[in-house]
Amino acid sequence: MKFATLANGHLDGRLVIVSYDQHLACDAHDIAPSLLDALQRWDTVALALQARSDALNTGQAADAFVFDPQQCLAPLPRSPQWLDGSAFLNHMQLMERAFNTPPMPKGDTVPVMYQGASDDFLGPHADVPLPSEADGIDFEGEFGVVVGPVPMAATPAEALAAVRLVVQINDWSLRALGPHEMQTGFGFLQAKPSTAFAPVAVTPDELGAAWHNGRVHMHLKVERNGERFGEPHGREMGFGFGELVAHAARTRRLTAGCIVGSGTVSNAARSAGSACLAERRVIEMIDQGAASTPFMRFGERVRMQALFEDGSAGPFGSIDQQVVPLAAGRGG
Amino acid sequence: MKFATLANGHLDGRLVIVSYDQHLACDAHDIAPSLLDALQRWDTVALALQARSDALNTGQAADAFVFDPQQCLAPLPRSPQWLDGSAFLNHMQLMERAFNTPPMPKGDTVPVMYQGASDDFLGPHADVPLPSEADGIDFEGEFGVVVGPVPMAATPAEALAAVRLVVQINDWSLRALGPHEMQTGFGFLQAKPSTAFAPVAVTPDELGAAWHNGRVHMHLKVERNGERFGEPHGREMGFGFGELVAHAARTRRLTAGCIVGSGTVSNAARSAGSACLAERRVIEMIDQGAASTPFMRFGERVRMQALFEDGSAGPFGSIDQQVVPLAAGRGG
Repeated sequence: MKFATLANGHLDGRLVIVSYDQHLACDAHDIAPSLLDALQRWDTVALALQARSDALNTGQAADAFVFDPQQCLAPLPRSPQWLDGSAFLNHMQLMERAFNTPPMPKGDTVPVMYQGASDDFLGPHADVPLPSEADGIDFEGEFGVVVGPVPMAATPAEALAAVRLVVQINDWSLRALGPHEMQTGFGFLQAKPSTAFAPVAVTPDELGAAWHNGRVHMHLKVERNGERFGEPHGREMGFGFGELVAHAARTRRLTAGCIVGSGTVSNAARSAGSACLAERRVIEMIDQGAASTPFMRFGERVRMQALFEDGSAGPFGSIDQQVVPLAAGRGG
Repeated sequence: MKFATLANGHLDGRLVIVSYDQHLACDAHDIAPSLLDALQRWDTVALALQARSDALNTGQAADAFVFDPQQCLAPLPRSPQWLDGSAFLNHMQLMERAFNTPPMPKGDTVPVMYQGASDDFLGPHADVPLPSEADGIDFEGEFGVVVGPVPMAATPAEALAAVRLVVQINDWSLRALGPHEMQTGFGFLQAKPSTAFAPVAVTPDELGAAWHNGRVHMHLKVERNGERFGEPHGREMGFGFGELVAHAARTRRLTAGCIVGSGTVSNAARSAGSACLAERRVIEMIDQGAASTPFMRFGERVRMQALFEDGSAGPFGSIDQQVVPLAAGRGG
């Protein structure tokens, strides 16, 4: 099943089901008013949602309408928790090499993960208002999962079984603010403004063979201002989503709707390019002695779309956003 | 005004107004179903809530009932964000001295703050299920504020003006897991299980002169298993709540209901005692060469209550919790 969320004045938005080809959608709010509500009552509503999805895909949904990703909010405009790993070890190793820092302690056996804000996610085409270009504005292309309830101390297998949906993410980052927040040991806060999501959240079966070993086996194609920036592949995650979700649940239960991210998709092969500016800048430092790629300026755009192995478009739709200056009175 | 939340099967619980003497309560869910809803529509509902509160305190509330803190959930069982500072610089300096670590970078000019989970807060008398005593189970007595909407890049004065409620907090911590998470730079995650709250959230005017300079000028009395542990005073915050909230809002807007904490209340005078085990253990290391106070074992209790300068009971009620082992099947 494919789900999206339209604005209706409520914080959780209005749930719609999206057709397999993403051309059509139909209402589902008589089954569950929002995607968060559906996740909270999944065992009760999943069959009815599947029946509605089947009707839509066989031309039998009475109220089908043209699906317009431009109108979408994030599939979950707010979620109980947003926990983002850094599971692509190539990315971490590049950062360590460039900055000559010691290896992440236990970096290949214990995931690293930070807790982000989950109350104010950005839709796939929403402008990104930020206070200053001097903060080092960067994007981070990621995959993520949305879980049902996960008990405290769940095993990775139990955690993986709790995955309900797969999502595609742009974890906006402010690189000038990150190093200080890492040095404090308290982790990222100001360095992580609102995170954005592709319009369509999908059940894992929609990915077919591309959902394998707790990883999304797809390319993440990233374009900056219409130019190719990279298309790293999801298979090189050092930890699968089962391990990441279990890490998050070690000393807390996760409630339905929590989102766990992969961290920046990154591949060892330089030809794959990168899914964030910081990684390309690090490669430039290593290869050329200095970073030459600038961070984002106001007015610039980034587009991200997942592709199957054969190059066909993935099921998430695309993220396509512009960075804009925080206007007076904006952001309240 | 004083607010509390009772269970009603919904994630946000049912709002009640508590009398000045905390003996009585009355329903307010016809005005706002939950405290979170009231905060989201504060300008619309505040006058009606005040009128209901006045009626309760003058014996004119038709449906008044005996207030039982044992039945209370956290005032906000879930909130949009939970952002916890470490604003008592004495606490931080003690930690640095004991572990011979360099001073927190910019520690006296820039607040440190981590983002915690905000979807599953514990009520004031709820058991605290945790997976292992070996994790170094500790409490942290704190004050906190609940804000209305705060625009991105708000000034400290604007941030302070957005404070709607003051709360009392026990930020449960797992000390054996903290150092690794600080070393990664990604911050606390497993080291911070669900946070607990005293039953009553109050508007700042309820504190009278004890709400001053963006700080809670009250003692926080902490007892472990019925024995005095400390009663440090809130006045020694190195940053006021205006500065803390503005720090949190530097690159993000805060939505109504976000909670910002002070960090462990701590005083320079050793006679004040401590509000967490880690700080007492650090003092023992400094003064006696080794820590002798053990972390919490299953079955132990901690009680926390704020007191006015004259020793009279504060308006928050008390937190009184027992740590229990995570049972098979529990936590889901």
